[in-house]
Amino acid sequence: MLTPADARAQYRGGLVAPTSGHAPGFTQANLVVLPRDWAYDMLLFGQRNPQPVPLLDVTDAGSTSTALAPGADLRTDLPQYRVWRDGELVDEPADVVDLWRDDLVSFLIGCSFSFEQALLDAGVPVRNIEQNRNVSMYRTNRECRPAGRLSGPLVVSMRPIPAALVATAVQVTARMPRVHGAPVHVGSPEALGITDAARPDFGDPAHAEPGDVPVYWACGVTPQAALMDSRPPFAITHAPGHMFVTDVPDAVYRQP
Amino acid sequence: MLTPADARAQYRGGLVAPTSGHAPGFTQANLVVLPRDWAYDMLLFGQRNPQPVPLLDVTDAGSTSTALAPGADLRTDLPQYRVWRDGELVDEPADVVDLWRDDLVSFLIGCSFSFEQALLDAGVPVRNIEQNRNVSMYRTNRECRPAGRLSGPLVVSMRPIPAALVATAVQVTARMPRVHGAPVHVGSPEALGITDAARPDFGDPAHAEPGDVPVYWACGVTPQAALMDSRPPFAITHAPGHMFVTDVPDAVYRQP
Repeated sequence: MLTPADARAQYRGGLVAPTSGHAPGFTQANLVVLPRDWAYDMLLFGQRNPQPVPLLDVTDAGSTSTALAPGADLRTDLPQYRVWRDGELVDEPADVVDLWRDDLVSFLIGCSFSFEQALLDAGVPVRNIEQNRNVSMYRTNRECRPAGRLSGPLVVSMRPIPAALVATAVQVTARMPRVHGAPVHVGSPEALGITDAARPDFGDPAHAEPGDVPVYWACGVTPQAALMDSRPPFAITHAPGHMFVTDVPDAVYRQP
Repeated sequence: MLTPADARAQYRGGLVAPTSGHAPGFTQANLVVLPRDWAYDMLLFGQRNPQPVPLLDVTDAGSTSTALAPGADLRTDLPQYRVWRDGELVDEPADVVDLWRDDLVSFLIGCSFSFEQALLDAGVPVRNIEQNRNVSMYRTNRECRPAGRLSGPLVVSMRPIPAALVATAVQVTARMPRVHGAPVHVGSPEALGITDAARPDFGDPAHAEPGDVPVYWACGVTPQAALMDSRPPFAITHAPGHMFVTDVPDAVYRQP
């Protein structure tokens, strides 16, 4: 079983692979990097939208390290990055050493991978894991509360859950607000403005089993949607599914 | 029984009085107001120190209203304010209308008044309420994680709790992380650098009953201590005990 430091060393060494299942039991985080000039708006966006944007750490400008994994280098230790200019995706490099600047602030944001393990531990099947595909994600008709120049829709992840286990899924994830917490919606995709559930905006379509109900959680892709809509001149994020593996055990973000 | 709007109307009309017990069942908040130039540091200070500085809302620059109480005016609706220049307390007015500026950002911060009611509901006596005095607060030897120009010590509130009820007090308050959450320390004031428990740095001395144990919670006075140490050119806060009464029921910040 890989330790978080082992996993990061492999990515630093050049491995490009989704991080799901790597260093199990440790929290993985979404990454958003913005110039200091935009950092206040992003920090406020997280404060105002804690369910989709639960900020686990925010670095000092220019720093390449985080309290979530002392010794890690945020420029090299994720398997793959995305580079954004004026809201457009321009590159997906394996490191961002050459792009780093002294005014960049990094935001580490909780990720639903943490609660998927908690669901499995509670006997709730996670279809995207069973089917070995990426979770389905949708832009919704709900706007996040704007912050300065940053605005955008709530993005949700959807997991089909057996009807008899929906209450269990709510209880398990409600105990983990730092990794998106309880669902924002159960059933009725139309009410969220989702017109074609078979065609998610991000990730793969889910295959529901008979008796499954669609359950929607706030999703860490929400800040990427805000970047696309709000068009800061420069930003770096993780590539979807290629998260930052921290040294923090999942249990730290699980409440009593 | 006063509604929150009734209480705020009385303060707006000139009543200067501590808010404890007013509009019971509704969340009261600490207030910190800073120029936009210092707002990023304060927002980051809250993000990095969520236990003493749980940010419930942060306003747009210049705005006098908050999502926690639509219709309220932050310049007039607290019973008493404190005005700070270069870290020094210079005035304690009943409103701040004449001091308001378009670049001021308001931070509303959770307050332990919310969990005192929860303690009473669980059968845990709250000595400062029984004795009708302000809670005891101490500067500790623990530094908050700094943020830009803002740094300072963790300030704690102390409540003497019967030894048999300490575990209950921990469980009850752990469910309320937005209003300081679980204690940071139980017993042994020396370990926090408190040399004379009979002389708190803020508030009144507590009278412990036989068998009581001192229990310490992170305190919303922490940002005021950081202002005193870090000396921004201008700041406004609430006067101690004279909180902002919101429209948010306490139960909203109580977890399942």
